[in-house]
Order: sequence, then C-alpha cells, then structure tokens
Amino acid sequence: MTPQSNEKRPLAALLVPDLLELLEEAPESLGPQTEEMHPADLADVAEALPEASVRAFFAALGKERAAEVLEYLDEDLRTQFLEELTAREAASIVAEMNPDERADALEELDEETADEILSELEPAEKAETERLLAYEPDTAGGLMTTEFVSVNEDLDVEAALSSVRAMARAGRREAMYAIYTTDILGRVRGVLSLNELLAAPEGARIADLAWSEVVTVSPNTLQEEVSQLISNYDLVTLPVVDEDRRLLGVVTVDDVIDVIQEEGTEDAQKFGGMEALEEPYMQIGLWQNVRKRGGWLAVLAVGEMLTASAMANYEGEIAGVPMLAQFIPLVMSSGGNSGSQATSLIIRAMALGEVRLGDWWRIVLRELPAGFILGLLLGTLSVARIMAWQAMGLYDYGQYSTRIAIAVGISLVGIVTFGSITGSMLPFVLRRLGFDPASASAPFVATLVDVSAIMIYFSMAYLMLSGRLLN
Amino acid sequence: MTPQSNEKRPLAALLVPDLLELLEEAPESLGPQTEEMHPADLADVAEALPEASVRAFFAALGKERAAEVLEYLDEDLRTQFLEELTAREAASIVAEMNPDERADALEELDEETADEILSELEPAEKAETERLLAYEPDTAGGLMTTEFVSVNEDLDVEAALSSVRAMARAGRREAMYAIYTTDILGRVRGVLSLNELLAAPEGARIADLAWSEVVTVSPNTLQEEVSQLISNYDLVTLPVVDEDRRLLGVVTVDDVIDVIQEEGTEDAQKFGGMEALEEPYMQIGLWQNVRKRGGWLAVLAVGEMLTASAMANYEGEIAGVPMLAQFIPLVMSSGGNSGSQATSLIIRAMALGEVRLGDWWRIVLRELPAGFILGLLLGTLSVARIMAWQAMGLYDYGQYSTRIAIAVGISLVGIVTFGSITGSMLPFVLRRLGFDPASASAPFVATLVDVSAIMIYFSMAYLMLSGRLLN
Repeated sequence: MTPQSNEKRPLAALLVPDLLELLEEAPESLGPQTEEMHPADLADVAEALPEASVRAFFAALGKERAAEVLEYLDEDLRTQFLEELTAREAASIVAEMNPDERADALEELDEETADEILSELEPAEKAETERLLAYEPDTAGGLMTTEFVSVNEDLDVEAALSSVRAMARAGRREAMYAIYTTDILGRVRGVLSLNELLAAPEGARIADLAWSEVVTVSPNTLQEEVSQLISNYDLVTLPVVDEDRRLLGVVTVDDVIDVIQEEGTEDAQKFGGMEALEEPYMQIGLWQNVRKRGGWLAVLAVGEMLTASAMANYEGEIAGVPMLAQFIPLVMSSGGNSGSQATSLIIRAMALGEVRLGDWWRIVLRELPAGFILGLLLGTLSVARIMAWQAMGLYDYGQYSTRIAIAVGISLVGIVTFGSITGSMLPFVLRRLGFDPASASAPFVATLVDVSAIMIYFSMAYLMLSGRLLN
Repeated sequence: MTPQSNEKRPLAALLVPDLLELLEEAPESLGPQTEEMHPADLADVAEALPEASVRAFFAALGKERAAEVLEYLDEDLRTQFLEELTAREAASIVAEMNPDERADALEELDEETADEILSELEPAEKAETERLLAYEPDTAGGLMTTEFVSVNEDLDVEAALSSVRAMARAGRREAMYAIYTTDILGRVRGVLSLNELLAAPEGARIADLAWSEVVTVSPNTLQEEVSQLISNYDLVTLPVVDEDRRLLGVVTVDDVIDVIQEEGTEDAQKFGGMEALEEPYMQIGLWQNVRKRGGWLAVLAVGEMLTASAMANYEGEIAGVPMLAQFIPLVMSSGGNSGSQATSLIIRAMALGEVRLGDWWRIVLRELPAGFILGLLLGTLSVARIMAWQAMGLYDYGQYSTRIAIAVGISLVGIVTFGSITGSMLPFVLRRLGFDPASASAPFVATLVDVSAIMIYFSMAYLMLSGRLLN
C-alpha cells in the first residue's frame, strides 16, 4: 500500500442542506433529480443525513430505487431503517432487492421482525428468501444469488439469445455475463459467456458452443475457497450446484471482493493481537473496542508473567551483575520480532494457498538457515555496540565486558533462530489443532518466544561469567 | 479466515506422466485432448512439468492456446520460456495475448529481449504495447487493457447490438460487459451494460438508454484508488480516460482482485516487520528471505539498544531490588501488545478509506479511554498475581511486596494507555511524512513503546520504594 490520494469524496456533505430543503418543499422531485446517480453515492448521502430525515429520504426515492440504495447502505443504518417501518412497508421495499441482498438485509434484523417481514412477502419470494437464509453466511450458499441465466443446451443461438433477452427485459440486473447450459433435468452441462453467445454463428447449437468443464461449488463450500476459485480462474460468476449438479444459484465477483477485503481486515486485526471487529473501527463503541482487545491482552499478560517466574531463577545473576538486566529488552524483542516476521509470512502464504499443512518441514528447512544468519547479524551488531561503548568510555561494563558482549551475541543467534522457527511453526500447529492460523498474532508469537529468550540469555550469561562475576 | 478445505488440486501431478508420453508419441493430439480445460489448469500442468518439456508442451498447444495459458503461468517460468525462444517465435505467441497481459509479460523480460520481441510485432500491436508499457505498473494505465467496447451514442439498439456482435466475432475476449457510449470526438458520454442493451426496446437511441454518470479514472490513478472504486461501485470494468475524457482503456475486475490480494500480502508482511517480498514465500531464495527481514530487524535491534542506555540509569534500583527486573518483560510486552493492536486497527481502517488524516484527534479521543481501561485491567491482574504469589508463599517479594505490586500495577495503566496512543498515532505520523502507514509494523511500535515503558516502570518503582528498599 502506498499513500492514497483519494480522500473520501465530500459529495454527500455538500448535498445535505440542499437535500433537506428539497425533502421539505418538493419531495417528488428527488427521484428525477438523482436518477443518474449511482446507488452507492446515494447511500453515502443517506448516511450523511440527520437520522430523522432518513425515512423521508427513502420514501421520496420510491421503493425500487430505495431497494437499490439499501444494498449499499451501512448495515446498522439499514437495520435501523427497516425496523422503524411496518412489516408491510419493509416487505414492499425488500421485495425489490436482489434475492441475495434481501436475505443479507433480513439476516441482520432481529428474528421476530425478520419473520414478520417474510410473512408479508409473496409466497415465491418468501420461500426463496427462506432458502437463502438457511445457508451459513460464510458459505457459497450464503453468498449466492438465485438470479442467474440458464438455457437448455438443445436450443440454437437465436433461440438462446431471445431467451436471454426475455430474462433481461424481465428485470434481471445481476449475473447476466455467464450463461449456463442445462440438460432437461436442470443439471449444469456447460457454460458460455454472453459475448461468446453474441459471437456465435446463427443456427449453431448451444451444446456445441458451451465449455463443458464448468467449475462449480456446493452451497456449503466455504467463502475462502469460493474467492480462491473466482480469483484463480478469473471468473465473474461461480455456479453453486446441489449433489445432482442442478443449479441453485451463482456467486458474483462483487460479493467476493467484499469477502476478500473483510478477510484481509480480520486477518490484520487478529495478527495485531485482538479479536476481529464486526464493524468499521470508527463505528464501534468504547465497550466493543475494549472487549475485543482486552481478552487477548489479558491472556498474553498472564503468559508474560511466566517470564517473571523464569527470571526468579536468575535472581542471583541479576543481583551479582545488574548490568545483565540492561539487555533483557534487546534479546526479548529480537526473538519476538524475528518470530512475528516468520509468522506473517506463513499466515499469508497459507491464506493464498501457497503453503499446505504437509509443507511444514520445507518451512523448517528454509527458516533454520535464515534465522541463523539473521541471528548472526543481530549478534554481531550487539557485540559491536557493547565493545564500542566500552572502548569509547560511554559505559563501563567492567573487566569482563568482552564476556558480557559474547554472552549477548551468542544468545541472540540462538534466540533469533528459535524465534524464526517458532514463529513459522505456530500457524501450522494452530491449523493442525483446528484453529484459525491467523490467530498466531505478532504478540502471541512474541510472548511464546519471550520466556525461552530469557532462559537462553541467562544460561549463556551464566556460562560465560560463572566463577568470575558470578559464583 | 477459517481453516481451509481446499488443499491444492492434485490434477497437475496426476497428468504429468501421461502428458510426457503424449508429448513424445503424439504431440498433435494434445490440443484436442485439452481443449475443454481452463487455461489456469493448463498453467498448473505446465508448472508441474520437468523444465525440459515446457517448450514442447507449449509448441504442441499451438500459439493461440499457448498465449492463453501464459496469462496464468508463474511469472518466472513465463519469463524463462519466452527468453529461450527466438524473438520471432516469442512475438508470434505474445501477439495472441490480450494487450494488457502482453505488456505485463514483456515488462518482466530484460529490456533487450523485450525490444527484440516488440520489433517483431505488427506495427499497430507494437505501438499499442509500447503505449501500455509506458505507464507505471501500479497505476490504472499499467492495469488497463485496450480491448473495450464503445459505440457511438447516436446509434439505435439494433445497430449497437450488431456492432457489439461484430466486435465479439473479431475475437474480443475481455471487457465485453460494459458498453461505453462516445460522442463523435471519442469522448465518453455514458455507459450501459450488455444486458441493458439486450433488454432495450428495438429502435431506442443508445444515448437515451445509457447512464450519463460514468465513474472514470486517469491513467495515472494509483491502483489502490482503482480497486476502491471498483469495490465501492460493484463494477466489472472501470474506464480509463485522458484529459479530454477520451477512452484509453478499461481496468477489469479480475486484475483488481489480484491487486487487492497482493496489497493484503504486502501489508501483512510489512506489519510483521519486514519489507514486502516480490514473490510467493515458497519461491524466494535464502538470500532474499534474509535481506528482506534483516534490514528491519537490525534497525529495530539498534532502537532496542536504547533501552539498554535507558536502563543504565536505573542500575542502582536493579542492584538494590533485583526482583524489579522480573517484571521488565511484562511491562514491556504489555505496552507493545496494546500498541500493535491499535496500529493494526488504524492501518486497516486507513487502507479501506474509513479513516482520513484529519481524523487523528477523533482516534485519540477513542484510544485514550480504551487504553486506560485496558491498562486498568492488566494492572489489576498483575497486582493480583504478585499478591497471590506472596500470600501463597510461591515467591517472597519481601516486606514491601504491596508497594512492588502497586508500582507494577500503576505503571501498566500508564504504559498500556501510552502504547495505545502511540500505536494509533504512528500510522498518521508516517502518512503525514509521506511514508506508507503500513510500515508501522507491530515490532516497530513495540520498540517505540519499550523505552518509554522502562522509564515509566522504573520511575514508578523509584517513587514507591525510595527511602525504603532504595535510597
């Protein structure tokens, strides 16, 4: 990421005063005046309005347009808006939404309100929405829309094209780019793009034009796999099929982009050592902010208290050579830093499918020499620092300054190597145990490595100084 | 991210022996046998082949199919393959690629080879490729393809449709979903989707159907902004225009997904405290692995050496009360952990455009109470730990155990609050100075906080114990 030039457009802020006047004086002119605006921009406008005017704004837009704008609206505001309406009013608006967006909107409401709205929908819409609501939100079924284009494979080009045109005229807005061909039982047999259909010679049979190798998923496929498939195969839509390969719906690329961004955010927050937030940072309250962070902080602090117990064993060394304490932060943080580097590399490689569980030993073979060389680098630096301070008279480490320097240097080699291996293996261990490897946060790794770093450091100091400064 | 079920498909591995036999015995049958396979899968197969067979594989596929597969092939392997061919052979293959992919492929080659291949292309293709190569790779110009669909806005539906069909038949494969309408000077005037065109009543004028508010970018727009626009507006293609709004090309959603994933990886690696890798982890060599990590590790170690200097000032306290050293790891890591939480929150909120530079004071107002409460939590835990160990006789902190406990507890309140504020402000400071806010890594923040944590802790200890254990 490089510095960004796009500060959020101030469009919404500028419009608000004019808009409030318009809503007051001539609400009927809102629709015509905004008809060329993208619903995402109108959603920004709605979010900038005072709460009391939101309802009037959507009423003035009209149901169909309101439904479009709701798809882009902040989830909390959408939930609040829908809950303020009567079930009948809400139903008349959500009925205009795409089926997948409608299910998402109802998912956010409390169950009773959602049920009331559902019961006001047309039976077919109600059944379709209930079917979508039954899938877990983080699966292909939870992401898919049931609006897709399929034609019988026995049609010819012109017949297929007019069937597609009829569907387009019936108001299909989404997922028109891929056309799935099905047999008489509705099973997916092939796929072709709308432009391949347009390019096809008249009279050709669709079955002969379509690609027979169709990448499909089941409704229970996890969203991570869905996004990897769409990304690997450069798909615009991915079909979701049942056990008999009958088409249930399609996942569209725009929903997958949202998934990829959400996961990036979740992974970043977890790696920072906290639970993932459910909402954007600026929208969470103090309590959620504290709760999502406090759990891990407390667990890590308790873990870090082990270092106090570990150090209690070295009290003699510290009392004898207090200056040893000066290098505790250096050896600890070097272990933690090398560990968090290794962890971030592996978590990301796992998220992108570059590294599998069985690859753990390959990683060890890579991290062992890398950690050793990095340790040598830091060890050399530290020896140089201590010797330089001693030589320049900036600090007096006493007659055994060289031995102290060597103790710090050698322990750094061990600690950085150990940190790199621990950091790279932690995501494997977590995943093997069925946890999310992204829970291997930088603070988690650092805490794991800290206790060992203290032990390595003081053992080395004992070795170098016993019988001299220490007894 | 949750545990993934899609271990990489073993397809490629299974095919290799059969394939080698086929290439030996009957290369001409490779094309027909693989014609239904997705080029991404064929690229996996090519990557699994022994190096010596790659050339025979692509030769057997034929130029057009080879070009498709090359678009999905690992960049290093693609570069190696193209460099082994004569310039004329390479030109005949890249000529079949989409213009943007062709430019990407040539970008990777050394300049001399790229120039030789360019000079073997048809003049029009050469000029187009050179134009694309002139844009920075991380801008809209570097991402865009010059294959797009535009029609004059004065056409009627049937004329536009047959113009689109003619383009599709001429072999356009990409970016067919959005149709841009232009005036007689080629300036963008509107946009409509292919399905809107199909749904339109016969005889309607295109200008009346198209949406007149078209989101456009300039060729120099950074890829981060491009991906935010595509994601916010759910676009499949984003048009790139010159100063006069003449259409230069379009960026397609599949390229943007790659950008979003790359940036997620870069941000994760930076946050882990290292430079971003240029290639997947499993493909980098030991030297690159060490180099990308060593720089930051060394800088951080040098920073951490400041703690040694800071602690030199408290040598008297440590010599007098060696047990104070036991809590150094706890207070240091608690500051670092709270800081890295805050940093990860802010970096991600900035990356998604949720937080602007001018919002810094809002963040302070949020982090100050959050950090204070979190500090209270950790402080209370630590006081309880020390008092419990004392009460249970697990360790003897001496007659002033309560004062030691209070010193640790109060410093934790200060350190965690300070860590949260520092961690949340660091991305703002970096961005203000023109650096990438994602460089505010967890180790960077921890190191920044460490020195202050030591000072806060020992000052507090001095305050609580001076005149008692300390003089």
